[in-house]
Amino acid sequence: MAERLVVIGGDAAGMSAASQARKRRGPEDLEIVAFERGNFTSYSACGIPYYLGDVVEDFDDLIVRTPEKFRDKQQIDARIHHEVVAIDLGARNVTVRDLANDSEAIEGFDQLVVATGGKPVRPPLEGVDARGIFGVQTLDDAVAIENFLENEKPKHAVVIGGGYIGLEMAEAFQLRGLDVALVERSAQPMVTLDPDIGELVAEAMRGLGVDLYSSEAVTGFEAKDGSVATVVTDNRTLHADIVVLGLGTRPNVELARMAGITIGESGGVKVDQRMQTEIEGVWSAGDCAEKINRVSGKPVAIALGTHANKEGRIAGINIGGGYATFPGVLGTATSKVCGYEVARTGLNEAEAKDAGFEFTTATSESTTRAGYFPGASPITTKLVVEQRSGRLLGAQIFGKEGAAKRIDGLAVALWNEMTVDAMVNVDLSYAPPFAPVWDPVLIAARKAWDKVQLELANLK
Amino acid sequence: MAERLVVIGGDAAGMSAASQARKRRGPEDLEIVAFERGNFTSYSACGIPYYLGDVVEDFDDLIVRTPEKFRDKQQIDARIHHEVVAIDLGARNVTVRDLANDSEAIEGFDQLVVATGGKPVRPPLEGVDARGIFGVQTLDDAVAIENFLENEKPKHAVVIGGGYIGLEMAEAFQLRGLDVALVERSAQPMVTLDPDIGELVAEAMRGLGVDLYSSEAVTGFEAKDGSVATVVTDNRTLHADIVVLGLGTRPNVELARMAGITIGESGGVKVDQRMQTEIEGVWSAGDCAEKINRVSGKPVAIALGTHANKEGRIAGINIGGGYATFPGVLGTATSKVCGYEVARTGLNEAEAKDAGFEFTTATSESTTRAGYFPGASPITTKLVVEQRSGRLLGAQIFGKEGAAKRIDGLAVALWNEMTVDAMVNVDLSYAPPFAPVWDPVLIAARKAWDKVQLELANLK
Repeated sequence: MAERLVVIGGDAAGMSAASQARKRRGPEDLEIVAFERGNFTSYSACGIPYYLGDVVEDFDDLIVRTPEKFRDKQQIDARIHHEVVAIDLGARNVTVRDLANDSEAIEGFDQLVVATGGKPVRPPLEGVDARGIFGVQTLDDAVAIENFLENEKPKHAVVIGGGYIGLEMAEAFQLRGLDVALVERSAQPMVTLDPDIGELVAEAMRGLGVDLYSSEAVTGFEAKDGSVATVVTDNRTLHADIVVLGLGTRPNVELARMAGITIGESGGVKVDQRMQTEIEGVWSAGDCAEKINRVSGKPVAIALGTHANKEGRIAGINIGGGYATFPGVLGTATSKVCGYEVARTGLNEAEAKDAGFEFTTATSESTTRAGYFPGASPITTKLVVEQRSGRLLGAQIFGKEGAAKRIDGLAVALWNEMTVDAMVNVDLSYAPPFAPVWDPVLIAARKAWDKVQLELANLK
Repeated sequence: MAERLVVIGGDAAGMSAASQARKRRGPEDLEIVAFERGNFTSYSACGIPYYLGDVVEDFDDLIVRTPEKFRDKQQIDARIHHEVVAIDLGARNVTVRDLANDSEAIEGFDQLVVATGGKPVRPPLEGVDARGIFGVQTLDDAVAIENFLENEKPKHAVVIGGGYIGLEMAEAFQLRGLDVALVERSAQPMVTLDPDIGELVAEAMRGLGVDLYSSEAVTGFEAKDGSVATVVTDNRTLHADIVVLGLGTRPNVELARMAGITIGESGGVKVDQRMQTEIEGVWSAGDCAEKINRVSGKPVAIALGTHANKEGRIAGINIGGGYATFPGVLGTATSKVCGYEVARTGLNEAEAKDAGFEFTTATSESTTRAGYFPGASPITTKLVVEQRSGRLLGAQIFGKEGAAKRIDGLAVALWNEMTVDAMVNVDLSYAPPFAPVWDPVLIAARKAWDKVQLELANLK
């Protein structure tokens, strides 16, 4: 008799797991049902700011695979508008609410994938539920914001939170012709960057005309006829016709926690090397699952589509009878903001300190192409490097076209625990349209190694 | 008393060595003299096609550092128009001909750097010395070609050889409005690529309007009044007002060989880990020096500016009293040709076979950005992977903007002897303007790993 795989959550992690399991086991051997409470399966949440900014025109382009395709091409029964409200590990079933019919049913499983994703942080402030205040996490959020923009024609937008999504939404509103203010509690936007690199991002935002209020906390919202009218911070009151919350997400683990599945210290579902929870046959992947940061060795909760896809794949291979392990993450991330490219991988200074490393940093200023080549533009590369050993711990890049993807070479170096001394000699590519003869990455490595050696000499 | 360092060759390798040595030892401890037979020191030969194509407008931009700067800023006595014609290892001196005065002098050394570079291949064909036939190796060549273009206003250009320089020169002539034909002996241009990827380059060239004659050998040249008039191949006669030889270079080692310095089997000067020849205190770096290919383990002669700079740096650190070793090369190279980007690293199929590897290949077709993002364009990524182990042996990339620099992540993976299985999980960067959620590089790695596993199953 066929086993039954139930997947909770129809986005990247869940559907990657389902697809990989299906690739290895046919429908006669494995029945697959996926429950998604929203309207959409497998979509690009990262594309939402570009859709809302009219950079990407066709909404359907954001949908990677529809429920119909899952059914017809892969014999995966993906049911939207179905919310799993309880997991019974003893009876090995889930309780599913059909949101369209407001009915509930019990669905048994042999294998279960918990891919419940992230829960956007909503500050417990007065007025936060007013009309016109949106999260930006799901395609349903995108639809709601697009409808609001079309119908209400807001003029003043306030974005709360200066992370990737916050910055990308600020730019999207700018592109749509709105006045945009961004409020960020920290001194700089993008707290996953060091302050010096974050300041470069702040300058770029101001250059685009975004009103940036950093080191300011939102204390509440004022509404008029139920719709948001102002955002109140500890320093000022900002006029707002539309507000977007870009405060990040936390792992959405209530369902798992209530069922008795172990939650790790990061707040994500605890999983082993194969993405299995402490319960046999119950797996977790994506934003809700805990990952190990390979550099710090610490359990972390990071919400990135790249991780979700990879982790889902690993879970699916194992459910499918194969063998695969997930080796952890570096937290590599990138974004295009206000005409600039920014990228990071590994540990920033604060994270390196927190992990107990002694480190030094080196920052190189170079150009994306040979200095004399048309279109050459500045690129800043910062490395965080362990003292004594010179081992790379993290990297951050800020610059124009061609800057961001350079983080990948550093990510692979970090993955292999390379020292900057070794990195200097790596045979990276060069041609005048693409790089100076010493790539900015290598210049930074040279500079970092010089610093490590100098400090080593001083230590003795 | 101060030691004396003599450097033969004033370009990347030689002057990098001189600079690094100076950084560690002041003029009171080390006198440095560099002899360069041409007109220029430290220049970007890779920039020549872009200067001749009017992409780079200012000739001086190609000069990284003039003799005056070396003298004033670094107290390095760099003498142009000085050709070293003999090395006496016993007496530890060199014979130098002053080309301006046609006089010779003996110059002693304690340390010697042989950085004599490459010698362009000139086919021993009738008429090859006619006016209007040029090599493209030094800045002096660039000046000669530019003057010819300006004064003679040639209409028909023939490029012989479809390597990087040949293709870039073909494009440069196109940009200058000439009719361009390219003759290549192999079936495809760029023999450092596999034929399937080389064919993509061939299509791009034809798309730009270059007449490509592949699998054709040049048999001679016909001149009229001493100037080249036609190029004769084994298939046709091509009208030619200007001809460029892009047949690559060989290590320029005659001087070293005559002095008794050991030449390796690759044809380059044999060096140890620190870039020292078999003679104590005599070093070599750059196009004339032998390198080890890290993947094949074989000694090779490759002429790339990146290697020259790195090797010169290593030699200079050691001469300066430091300690550094050169770990070998991957042969990473890239070029922008006819609107496309092409890059390679490690071994191609022929090289892998030659090294005794059993391998499989996988090619992914993806996009440079998220498929739905404006400007997303096709990118082809081909991997050469060892059977059974899945170890990466080489990679080739062809595509539009954003394609080429992706070779760097693969180069670092190759450097660390990663398997494609491990590579699949590496935390590379993703955002819709820069990549699909599975970067093309990772898609290729997935595909290659699937193939390795399948072949492994079939082997049993």
